Amino acid sequence: MATDIEIAQHADIWPIEKIAAQVGLTADEIEPYGRDKAKIKLNPNIVRGKTLGKLILVTAISPTPAGEGKSTVTVGLADALSLAGKKTMIALREPSLGPVMGMKGGATGGGQSQVVPMADINLHFTGDFHALTSAHNTLAALIDNSIYQGNPHQLDPRRVLWKRVLDVNDRALRHVTIGLGGATSGVPREDGFDITVASELMAILTLSHDLEDMKRRIEAIVVGYTYEREPVFVKDLGVAGALTTLLKDAIKPNLVQTLAHTPTLIHGGPFANIAQGTNSIQATKTALQLADYVVTEAGFGSDLGGEKFLDFKVPLLGKTPDTIVIVATVRALKMHGGKAKSDLAAADVEALKVGLLNLGQHLKAMQRYQVPVLVAINRFVTDTPEEIQAIEAYAEAQGAKAYVANVWEAGGAGAPELAQAVIESTDMPKNFTPLYAKDDSAVEKLNLIVQSIYGGDGVELSDKAQKQLQQFSKFGWDKLPIIVAKTQYSLSDDAKKLGAPEHFKIHVREFVPKTGAGFLVALTGSILTMPGLPKHPAAYDIDINRDGTITGLF
Amino acid sequence: MATDIEIAQHADIWPIEKIAAQVGLTADEIEPYGRDKAKIKLNPNIVRGKTLGKLILVTAISPTPAGEGKSTVTVGLADALSLAGKKTMIALREPSLGPVMGMKGGATGGGQSQVVPMADINLHFTGDFHALTSAHNTLAALIDNSIYQGNPHQLDPRRVLWKRVLDVNDRALRHVTIGLGGATSGVPREDGFDITVASELMAILTLSHDLEDMKRRIEAIVVGYTYEREPVFVKDLGVAGALTTLLKDAIKPNLVQTLAHTPTLIHGGPFANIAQGTNSIQATKTALQLADYVVTEAGFGSDLGGEKFLDFKVPLLGKTPDTIVIVATVRALKMHGGKAKSDLAAADVEALKVGLLNLGQHLKAMQRYQVPVLVAINRFVTDTPEEIQAIEAYAEAQGAKAYVANVWEAGGAGAPELAQAVIESTDMPKNFTPLYAKDDSAVEKLNLIVQSIYGGDGVELSDKAQKQLQQFSKFGWDKLPIIVAKTQYSLSDDAKKLGAPEHFKIHVREFVPKTGAGFLVALTGSILTMPGLPKHPAAYDIDINRDGTITGLF
Repeated sequence: MATDIEIAQHADIWPIEKIAAQVGLTADEIEPYGRDKAKIKLNPNIVRGKTLGKLILVTAISPTPAGEGKSTVTVGLADALSLAGKKTMIALREPSLGPVMGMKGGATGGGQSQVVPMADINLHFTGDFHALTSAHNTLAALIDNSIYQGNPHQLDPRRVLWKRVLDVNDRALRHVTIGLGGATSGVPREDGFDITVASELMAILTLSHDLEDMKRRIEAIVVGYTYEREPVFVKDLGVAGALTTLLKDAIKPNLVQTLAHTPTLIHGGPFANIAQGTNSIQATKTALQLADYVVTEAGFGSDLGGEKFLDFKVPLLGKTPDTIVIVATVRALKMHGGKAKSDLAAADVEALKVGLLNLGQHLKAMQRYQVPVLVAINRFVTDTPEEIQAIEAYAEAQGAKAYVANVWEAGGAGAPELAQAVIESTDMPKNFTPLYAKDDSAVEKLNLIVQSIYGGDGVELSDKAQKQLQQFSKFGWDKLPIIVAKTQYSLSDDAKKLGAPEHFKIHVREFVPKTGAGFLVALTGSILTMPGLPKHPAAYDIDINRDGTITGLF
Repeated sequence: MATDIEIAQHADIWPIEKIAAQVGLTADEIEPYGRDKAKIKLNPNIVRGKTLGKLILVTAISPTPAGEGKSTVTVGLADALSLAGKKTMIALREPSLGPVMGMKGGATGGGQSQVVPMADINLHFTGDFHALTSAHNTLAALIDNSIYQGNPHQLDPRRVLWKRVLDVNDRALRHVTIGLGGATSGVPREDGFDITVASELMAILTLSHDLEDMKRRIEAIVVGYTYEREPVFVKDLGVAGALTTLLKDAIKPNLVQTLAHTPTLIHGGPFANIAQGTNSIQATKTALQLADYVVTEAGFGSDLGGEKFLDFKVPLLGKTPDTIVIVATVRALKMHGGKAKSDLAAADVEALKVGLLNLGQHLKAMQRYQVPVLVAINRFVTDTPEEIQAIEAYAEAQGAKAYVANVWEAGGAGAPELAQAVIESTDMPKNFTPLYAKDDSAVEKLNLIVQSIYGGDGVELSDKAQKQLQQFSKFGWDKLPIIVAKTQYSLSDDAKKLGAPEHFKIHVREFVPKTGAGFLVALTGSILTMPGLPKHPAAYDIDINRDGTITGLF
């Protein structure tokens, strides 16, 4: 059987100008990166006097090592909509390189439902993440240089918030001391590295409407506190212009295609477990202006990317979703029902039924936004008719229809019914209902998230987190939207609690103010903002031959 | 008066396909990056049955804060050759982003002798340096992960040689401790960051003939020593394939153009004060195959980039230069003669004459290779006829002709005589004579470099350096070519000794084995492999407006 990369390597990839032309973009409105990738120029003439397209949000049950295939369904559904004659675009996040070298598993779909050129997208793509890494670490160097060169802003070296970043899974960089080596090599202090996708600049990239907006947001980043505990902003350092200059190309959405040539925008890539988890506002808006149907995705389960999309991105986007699709698989639901990974090939309706409670909570969470919700069953070859029927029946009982998507095997041709159901549901009446009000307190917001989305009892704040909220209220930050950093594997903050845990609280150990992006990150449980590599990293298996043919990349 | 970036922003830039066509490259042989940059595919059909072009090496006197304009002369000379009807290409290094944010001063020429698109080339260009940073730090993470996951190679954490890199001037990262924060965050050890251009992978990128050659070189990198003091190589870790995959596009030379549309390859960018200081073998070879005249440059003075080009790059390139051009300016020579930077506008033939001794040593150093050597006087508006004549007379007395290059003001039209002299000199008989034999010992090689090139008495090794050579002889590394890391400001290893210092020794404090690149770095004086930012970094003055127009970048 062909691997994903083999399928991608044999794809019939059209010149990117031809893909652009399908949605009315001229060659002058794009900047090619190779023959099969392009950036869309800032402010192309894309408002063509038509109404915005329909927005379809694809989210999922809580992920398991069994694999859910949310990207695969996103791509397959979009190809199915294209096959049904609808002018369709996809808006996805860019993959992070760190995990590509760590754990196998692509971020560009799989089987016959992939985005291409697969290897390029998963490696350096058009350089957006590298530009972010560069801008982020330039700011870090400028901060330490300012301290070293007389410290005019009186930054307390023990209270610098702005860490450094790399797009590498590198646990050894989580906690470091810098500035060692004597008087000419800086001022010693504790520091640490996050993965690039956790950078506030990544969040800002995905939220900025244009370069001015980006610069204004960068100016508002708090980099640390003075000895008097007053915040110091990038504006005080006077380097927002230089940092925006470093991001002048990264702000432009990237255009690629699916195996079936559906135009796809891939732009921005914050993880949903440590950041806001959705692709850029720019990309989604551009797609809505160019196409009649836009399929987009939010990271991990609906409790993470889904909630953040609906509560944080939607108000900035100015457009609510017309339909929400929750992806589930028989295999993953059996794992949620307690079955071991090695046993998943065997049929087991009983385990499945227990695991369905996980789907149930995600359905309940999404349905509360008063938008049509469907279930897509991403089909695996080992699924039995009884298992499929059990999911369909369960979903029906929860007020949602479930559809099989055989898109890994058959591409868009594997999901005609799902596509038809999506088309119909986007025309149904809806009444989008936000989860919380802007002026709710941080604790109120968190309680609503925990109770309505995770199915838990409420939130618990550490002493530190409580003190931080008091401090933040002085600066006017206490009512910012909340982005929860939480394990993706459980609806709770304990990765081991699969299924639908009950009677749990979420423990916030610390808040991180992201005043440029405009939110507070709530760090819960033991979630880390810099992943590590596994015992056998994927890098051990990746190779390339003299002609440039890559093997072992997924 | 227009600044460099204003001139560049108003340039008439041709589509990159048109530039490629000038040297016979078809659209299929290049990969566009935007409309005005492209990579040349691996193995294009470029050996067109003709003989190699003439190779012109541009080097310079010891640089001063007054500015020498080596890149400006390189570009202007090539444009002058184009104007004279010669099929000409340029081969340059890529600028490093760290210094762009630190000190003002571009790496793409100046005035009417520039390479464009200037801002892009000086910022992220086609992402080569970011790919190197990424590959370098991926290897670092894999090393620390290997130690953490049971340490199968028995790497001594105190003897890891492979540091981390960033393309940022960041003195606070020179000396760090990593792996702090408890048992799940790695193994604590001392580490440090170099600037990306100092990475051995940068050297390998510029030396590799193809992907196989690159992989073989990466395998040969020594990353550290075991507890038994045996070397551990990348081959032992089994990750050369993944690292080569990360460099699959970076290995391809980048095509851009001058303001006058001379095709220019810009590829690879090791600094000449801490690394080998010349652009890639790939780029130079490609240019030699496509054009009749190739003008290339080596970093800083002839003692650094020049010597490394002639002793290290030439044997790998398989082609010796046909002419060497040494760039000098009246201003810089006056500084070498003891004049303060603030006084340089005033005519001062006496100071100039003292400073000419610096040019004298560079002439002597280059003439010993038995290749024609010319002097190019990069003209500034404050130069007086008497001063120009003094340089011409001095050069003549040393057996070299000097020519005024008014290329900053007039582009290629400012250097017809220099171009004519270069054309004629490339046809003169020559007898390239290497400085040292492959089998000379490290000390013999260093003494030859110090005596014949720097004009000093010889080399002195620290106890550590002496012990290292004993150790290296066990591994067969003691006879590798030497790359001296030395201040660019003086022919000696003391940055304050301008002019032509005499009776000095060069102090080698440490060797760094670069077994993948195939050389030993000799660290001399107080040269640092991670620069710092100045009190007023250039980043403070860089800005961008809503339309993407950049200001303050040079």
